[in-house]
Amino acid sequence: MRPDSRGAIGVFDSGVGGLTVLKALMRRLPGESTLYLGDTARVPYGTKSPEVVTLYSIKNAEFLLERGIKLLVVACNTASSVALPELEAHLRVPVLGVIAPGARAAAAKSRSGKIGVIGTPGTIRSGAYQRELQAARPDVQVSARACPMFVPLAEEGWVTGDVPRLVAREYLAPLVATGVDTLVLGCTHYPLLRDVIAEVMGPGVALVDSAEATAEAVAAVLASKGALEAESRAAEHRYFVTDVPERFMDVGAKFLGQPLSGAEHVDVSFG
Amino acid sequence: MRPDSRGAIGVFDSGVGGLTVLKALMRRLPGESTLYLGDTARVPYGTKSPEVVTLYSIKNAEFLLERGIKLLVVACNTASSVALPELEAHLRVPVLGVIAPGARAAAAKSRSGKIGVIGTPGTIRSGAYQRELQAARPDVQVSARACPMFVPLAEEGWVTGDVPRLVAREYLAPLVATGVDTLVLGCTHYPLLRDVIAEVMGPGVALVDSAEATAEAVAAVLASKGALEAESRAAEHRYFVTDVPERFMDVGAKFLGQPLSGAEHVDVSFG
Repeated sequence: MRPDSRGAIGVFDSGVGGLTVLKALMRRLPGESTLYLGDTARVPYGTKSPEVVTLYSIKNAEFLLERGIKLLVVACNTASSVALPELEAHLRVPVLGVIAPGARAAAAKSRSGKIGVIGTPGTIRSGAYQRELQAARPDVQVSARACPMFVPLAEEGWVTGDVPRLVAREYLAPLVATGVDTLVLGCTHYPLLRDVIAEVMGPGVALVDSAEATAEAVAAVLASKGALEAESRAAEHRYFVTDVPERFMDVGAKFLGQPLSGAEHVDVSFG
Repeated sequence: MRPDSRGAIGVFDSGVGGLTVLKALMRRLPGESTLYLGDTARVPYGTKSPEVVTLYSIKNAEFLLERGIKLLVVACNTASSVALPELEAHLRVPVLGVIAPGARAAAAKSRSGKIGVIGTPGTIRSGAYQRELQAARPDVQVSARACPMFVPLAEEGWVTGDVPRLVAREYLAPLVATGVDTLVLGCTHYPLLRDVIAEVMGPGVALVDSAEATAEAVAAVLASKGALEAESRAAEHRYFVTDVPERFMDVGAKFLGQPLSGAEHVDVSFG
């Protein structure tokens, strides 16, 4: 990677969760270098206010922009749901969140138009998925539910067994009752709980992970600008975190599906 | 309260949890005014590194000191376990954490000397309770266990029923097996789960909540300095938070055991 990382795709998240989005990007666009910033000193965003999440998002974006990225992916659903307009107004590079791509994929997949969305309290309260689903398909009937315990379960690695099953039943029973045929996993942590979520929702319900859809959307934007790198190029991937790297590297490997090469600690004030 | 709040007891915590300590202080010292700062923009501390928790603790302490407090209580177990030496070196007022009072109370209460401690990963990893228990009673045998899911359970209000019982069994079974006769609730959130923890530990195990012991220690320090207010004085209590106040007021009432009179939003950078 060139020393200033010019031309990489920038990705930020509140912590490790966005690595599921990075994983999809690396698979879809193997020639693209990436810079990932996990704001582990302030994680989680999902229970915090729109004002604070927007402030942190702008600081994250500025950190990555100073390093010369060509496009920004907001990999955090909560940040995507509240901070995207502010980021778009602020930045000179294309900015993509995970909400619109995930919503469009779900709208296309659903047969009945009855779609469920699960996410953090911040994401669900924002109504962003509900709005994007409506925009993509006006006949849609959306049932949304915040599942705050799913994030600590995923980070603890409690993804199978009685505890996650019981928690999932508690949260998802109302969605099962509404008869949705498609469920959006509207938080980057939730794909780790996919098995138990699928079991509770039943075989008739399709699960949509925004990560794949977002990677597609990034590919389309870069292609339209003639800014795609050759797939044969040796891409490089760098990781920055705002708390010390150990826990990020440890938990992050589960989210990325492979060991992390190393992460650099950056100051919490981004000074 | 005088406009600059001079002479109040300052209390900070990562969020709402420290209100269990404030509650004990208000009961033990009804004439004392208090200033409480909940760092809700950065909560939780329990899964973050000692470096970051110490940095946030110093900023919290400075915010309260500027308002003229006469004594500082670090109501957060994680901050007490890693940041106390730095705070003591930094400040000109007495500083009390919750660890030493809690450990001394447990050491005095245990008959067998087999004592269990539960807390956040940060608190347990620091070894602070283990050291204080050893100092208070050299024959002690300490069994410690991090219970990270207890914080989101308490904040969600899931404090009775199958989910907390199952989670408590998962965490506490190894402590039951060691035959402890006393268990320290080494996190301010855990008193909300007291019933389910007591049920899983069994009737032979005494539970120690550091909040009461800390209130006693504060009373002793103020008395020794002749700085106690008359109990008949009309005390005032002010609350500051670094994220917007709504969730703090809502969840906080559960921790304080009474409605909060109001909370003021202060800037996240404490500028």
